[in-house]
Amino acid sequence: MIVLRHVIGDELRRRRQDQGRTLRDVSAAAAVSLGYLSEVERGQKEASSELLAAICGALDVPLSDVMHSVTNHLVEAEHPRVAVHAN
Amino acid sequence: MIVLRHVIGDELRRRRQDQGRTLRDVSAAAAVSLGYLSEVERGQKEASSELLAAICGALDVPLSDVMHSVTNHLVEAEHPRVAVHAN
Repeated sequence: MIVLRHVIGDELRRRRQDQGRTLRDVSAAAAVSLGYLSEVERGQKEASSELLAAICGALDVPLSDVMHSVTNHLVEAEHPRVAVHAN
Repeated sequence: MIVLRHVIGDELRRRRQDQGRTLRDVSAAAAVSLGYLSEVERGQKEASSELLAAICGALDVPLSDVMHSVTNHLVEAEHPRVAVHAN
């Protein structure tokens, strides 16, 4: 089964790393504990709506943008592409 | 602030009502309590990833489909359309 918090966690971590930022930096900017952010990124803890919004704010990305990427990953996970082999 | 669980709750309720189904029917099919489903639909309680998947399963809709609609509502909420008035 696809677990939404895993997909959200992966996306949040990818965006943080793409910005070259540390857990310490983003957790401080979002006013969440470093341990909590780490658990959310690893899909071990559900982020509440308020804390997800705070993390997106700290990353300076709209929640809709993160959820758009999450939705794309869900679609890919639900409908894995069949590899096409050339003859 | 846009609260994700409100948008998810509205979407789940809309889909249940579009199917002409009761809280009792869907909660039983998802194996969640009627009170819990009602609180999720009203945006009062965060749905865990597992229970969100169970509710989507009970509604027979892919999670990605629900999250696609949710993302569209987030975009609309973040970028309200300016009303265009004809002269």
